[in-house]
Amino acid sequence: MAGDIVVRPVGAVRILDDGRQAVEIAPEYADGLHGIESLEHIWVLYWMHELPPAARARLRGHPYGDRARPERGVFALHSPFRPNPIGMTRVRLLGREGNRLIVEGLDALDGSPVIDIKSA
Amino acid sequence: MAGDIVVRPVGAVRILDDGRQAVEIAPEYADGLHGIESLEHIWVLYWMHELPPAARARLRGHPYGDRARPERGVFALHSPFRPNPIGMTRVRLLGREGNRLIVEGLDALDGSPVIDIKSA
Repeated sequence: MAGDIVVRPVGAVRILDDGRQAVEIAPEYADGLHGIESLEHIWVLYWMHELPPAARARLRGHPYGDRARPERGVFALHSPFRPNPIGMTRVRLLGREGNRLIVEGLDALDGSPVIDIKSA
Repeated sequence: MAGDIVVRPVGAVRILDDGRQAVEIAPEYADGLHGIESLEHIWVLYWMHELPPAARARLRGHPYGDRARPERGVFALHSPFRPNPIGMTRVRLLGREGNRLIVEGLDALDGSPVIDIKSA
């Protein structure tokens, strides 16, 4: 298989003091937000940076963490425990404040590196 | 923003001699496919490895490459030209042959590194 890939984060998840969820884009990538206000939903791809390394070695898990359900491979799940802990969430775009996108439905920790955003 | 992230591919896209599209998972990750046969659709995340580096510097583009439509930032598009050229496609899972998933609807080049698969 191919060698390692280096991904440079374009921003980070911010949980604001008032509890709102934001995606903050680094100034050098801010032009990539041009016109995004017109979208109602976007995909946010982020890195689940606080998972311990051991979580990346698990190749099976229970759907929704429910031990009553039979195990499945992680590629047949949405579990955060996976070789490359990339989170992928379709969120509602509530607005834009400069380099910040205010969103709803993003289940990510404050500080999670954002690696891509796409129209949804 | 956070430092670079190292992503280790878990497999690669294969265009088979008969034209079928496959995702081939490396042997060390094959257990992560357990039970995936029961799914009708999966998400495939891959790296668009043949894009020239300059393509990653473009921060705006025309929707669907149509120059008659006003430019937008790449984060408001699905264009392959983006800082981190991660392709994200929901495909139909036609079957599994060992470490290979046979899929339909994957618009990726042969050899593209696959970085994650999720249930869809």
